Amino acid sequence: MVSIAGDTLMNPADLEFHFDFGSPNAYLSHRVLPQIEARRNVKFSYLPVLIGGVFKLTNNVSPMVANRDILNKKEYAQIETNRFLLRHGIDNFRMNPHFPVNTLRIMRGAVYAAQQGFGAHYIDVVFAAMWEQGRNLAEEREILAVLDAAGLPAGEILQRCDDPAIKQRLMDNTADSVRRGAFGSPFFFVGGQIFFGKDKLDDVERELQNLQARGT
Amino acid sequence: MVSIAGDTLMNPADLEFHFDFGSPNAYLSHRVLPQIEARRNVKFSYLPVLIGGVFKLTNNVSPMVANRDILNKKEYAQIETNRFLLRHGIDNFRMNPHFPVNTLRIMRGAVYAAQQGFGAHYIDVVFAAMWEQGRNLAEEREILAVLDAAGLPAGEILQRCDDPAIKQRLMDNTADSVRRGAFGSPFFFVGGQIFFGKDKLDDVERELQNLQARGT
Repeated sequence: MVSIAGDTLMNPADLEFHFDFGSPNAYLSHRVLPQIEARRNVKFSYLPVLIGGVFKLTNNVSPMVANRDILNKKEYAQIETNRFLLRHGIDNFRMNPHFPVNTLRIMRGAVYAAQQGFGAHYIDVVFAAMWEQGRNLAEEREILAVLDAAGLPAGEILQRCDDPAIKQRLMDNTADSVRRGAFGSPFFFVGGQIFFGKDKLDDVERELQNLQARGT
Repeated sequence: MVSIAGDTLMNPADLEFHFDFGSPNAYLSHRVLPQIEARRNVKFSYLPVLIGGVFKLTNNVSPMVANRDILNKKEYAQIETNRFLLRHGIDNFRMNPHFPVNTLRIMRGAVYAAQQGFGAHYIDVVFAAMWEQGRNLAEEREILAVLDAAGLPAGEILQRCDDPAIKQRLMDNTADSVRRGAFGSPFFFVGGQIFFGKDKLDDVERELQNLQARGT
């Protein structure tokens, strides 16, 4: 059970956002989550997972692949995205022209950045480069340029992406996410309950309210 | 554009619920939609469509088929269903033991019932038989028994299911639904906007509120 009372701060260990930079819906969730955190006075832990690994472990595929040959479904996904942008006043999202992007390096970088204490800054910078600036973050030189421009230790981060412990940690995160019920990105974990997709953010907030109202 | 002002009654022609009795999510939506109608002072038109026809026309398959071999996804769908039941206080839903049920006859019956002016009663009765009482409504004698017990003209309805005009109307509804963007069940149409699935009922209500606030 999570341990909270009234509106006091919830244990961050109980609130997790499992993300891959390659998922536009993870980015869109990242834009809205801070508002929920502020309203509910909580903080989510961001857990880097490799969506390609999640798909392999669950025998799933991306929506782009799954919906490729289904009439109307891709168009509807676009309608839903536009609706989300409008509702939340997000006006600088644009589809990455290099999509789908291999995110292996930047996800390993997220593991390292978190360990070094600049995880939040790194996540903001990389999400923006991917889904606002259209950068191709499968390329090392693009990663270097983006991180460097943001004042992050670009060379150091990229070098540590080859560290076996970092690689293993990302694999472990991914397997752990699947073991706990994930099959795609983004996934939210709220005190034992799981929620899939940006469209469940309202339910995430409702669950937080319920937990806080119960004081459990 | 829809023609409404303030909280006045919205034109029913602009609010549609496209359903197939065979979809548990259509049933669950049918349980919640009346509350939205009451809060927003509107009424939805129920349009019978054949989900099998929608799938054929869009090259789609049911979630049961699509998720069959994906780890965690079926379990998550069950979590979402339970969450929906709990939130809306629905305690008499049970999965139909004959699922998936061939709904061709009962959907044709819905077309006829609507033409005869007892569509709403018929829909309540058939949805309940399917998703509360576990009846096998692919069977003629089961349909007869259920409709008869509800005081509906069972023999007449079943007979008219073979009427070419009724058959054609259901096919036309189905093609029309796909032409307007559907690829599954349930679909909601609100003044030109489309919404897919029971999980979008909050968005359906938000759209109604926005339209009414704008008075357009």
